[in-house]
Amino acid sequence: MAEIEPLRFEDGALLVLDQRLLPGEERWLRCEQPAEVAECISTLAVRGAPAIGIAAAYGLALVADGDDRRAAADMLRSTRPTAVNLAWAMTQVLAAPDALTRARELHRAQDAADRRLAELGAARFAPGDRALTHCNAGALATAGYGTAGGVLRAAWERGRLREVWVDETRPLLQGARLTTYELTRAGIPYRLITDSSAGTLMARGLVDRVVVGADRIAANGDVANKVGTYPLAVMAERHGVPFYVAAPLSTVDPGTPDGGAIPIEERDATEVAPGLPALNLAFDVTPAELVSAIVTEAGVLEAPYAETIAAVRASEIA
Amino acid sequence: MAEIEPLRFEDGALLVLDQRLLPGEERWLRCEQPAEVAECISTLAVRGAPAIGIAAAYGLALVADGDDRRAAADMLRSTRPTAVNLAWAMTQVLAAPDALTRARELHRAQDAADRRLAELGAARFAPGDRALTHCNAGALATAGYGTAGGVLRAAWERGRLREVWVDETRPLLQGARLTTYELTRAGIPYRLITDSSAGTLMARGLVDRVVVGADRIAANGDVANKVGTYPLAVMAERHGVPFYVAAPLSTVDPGTPDGGAIPIEERDATEVAPGLPALNLAFDVTPAELVSAIVTEAGVLEAPYAETIAAVRASEIA
Repeated sequence: MAEIEPLRFEDGALLVLDQRLLPGEERWLRCEQPAEVAECISTLAVRGAPAIGIAAAYGLALVADGDDRRAAADMLRSTRPTAVNLAWAMTQVLAAPDALTRARELHRAQDAADRRLAELGAARFAPGDRALTHCNAGALATAGYGTAGGVLRAAWERGRLREVWVDETRPLLQGARLTTYELTRAGIPYRLITDSSAGTLMARGLVDRVVVGADRIAANGDVANKVGTYPLAVMAERHGVPFYVAAPLSTVDPGTPDGGAIPIEERDATEVAPGLPALNLAFDVTPAELVSAIVTEAGVLEAPYAETIAAVRASEIA
Repeated sequence: MAEIEPLRFEDGALLVLDQRLLPGEERWLRCEQPAEVAECISTLAVRGAPAIGIAAAYGLALVADGDDRRAAADMLRSTRPTAVNLAWAMTQVLAAPDALTRARELHRAQDAADRRLAELGAARFAPGDRALTHCNAGALATAGYGTAGGVLRAAWERGRLREVWVDETRPLLQGARLTTYELTRAGIPYRLITDSSAGTLMARGLVDRVVVGADRIAANGDVANKVGTYPLAVMAERHGVPFYVAAPLSTVDPGTPDGGAIPIEERDATEVAPGLPALNLAFDVTPAELVSAIVTEAGVLEAPYAETIAAVRASEIA
């Protein structure tokens, strides 16, 4: 397939594929200032925890030499509170001698991490498997190969995937709009379902594995991801379906002890329905005990996560 | 509040409030033939298990004297497979000497049953309660006072309800379109949520009770209702939230031994998204062990449902 690249840095500007318009239209937004990148992130023109980290890293590279990168980093970091990759990328770029070089390194590293974790995740699949995914955690969400979406691609390429069930993912339909777009381009068979149908498919034995991405993983293995992930994990446990979280190590936040400490972004009620009172929580927290495995580029982690996460982080830093 | 009446029989015709256009427009469809009523039922101009039973009953009253009511009953019965009230109403009208008289009796009896079960359900509420409901089981769904919606109205009138969380209910948004319309008219405070947010609200302690309607209740207490009910019940059990099913006894089908025997209607994929492959299951089955109580007009039933259902049916027939 032609690779989907939602972010490109060219001629001193960051080009952002406007994901709000997909799949109907492929329009590129040109950002020449960090504030324009921040606007793309907060309005979801670019979304997905790893991709917004990469976008913000390029955003810092747009700060003129001599100006204060720290203020721009603070602004970019404040756009969305739940995904930790954003804060992580800001720290990485601020510590580097050259912002653009470091942003490009992070972008390449994301793709490499995605490809490694996709291989490791696909190894858990068996021929004929039907997988279910939520929201979008493919190339559009990472600016690389994709996390959960990468696992599905790798499993498909190895003949270990029969079909994907795609949760439409209300209210913004990232599943119906973005995951179906990616799967279509990759030639992977899928069927779309409403989010609340997933449990019934599991009850009927039509789901062999669930694989999702993550916006932040706490030190104890609790996972923040798109709202709707938690009930999926509960239903998967009830029906004995393995529940995998696919995410790079940059999504693990050792400074967050557990899910209760993860800030959950509340977005505007109009995203749910215009003109009606609504509560629009963008993410939820899945407790570690419901997670069968966390698939990272450094290995597939299993419980007890507090130990396996600490160990893999120590080995990566060493 | 002005009562919402989705069905009216006037001047030899059945007038159907077109629920597909609500809340934007209140348009009435005039049916002079059973086939027109069947069309209203299959296209969801009228929906809700009790309401389609009443509509079909009036549909039989449209058959000219001397013509075959049995053929019309077969056609009306085949429009939607899951709700049992439809088949029940056809049996009732066919056995009666005068179809219109019996249809009017069933209509009045539905309203009376709704009001009794609403009282019984509201008695389970306590001041300050926040309730969550799914789909629409109010006056629009029953052509009476409402089942789950009736319980909410009665609880509100008795000062035992603080707020309602309304599941938007994809794909056809009966919660976002119809339940919010009814609650607004009744002056009951509510907030709309995406279906997959319900579990997180329960985890945060923001839901005191869940109350839903039913399309068919099997002899063992398994409940078929709008897709998304089953995961709600699972999440409610996990978080210790009482899960009530409110339905008239006509929704209980003694001929269906358990949920596995309930036919689940699969509707057109285009209801989920136009142009994409999709699986659109309209209902799901909640196992009896997840149901805290079934609120009927003849009493609030609790487990073991096989026994309590049989007993209440015997007492009603006696």
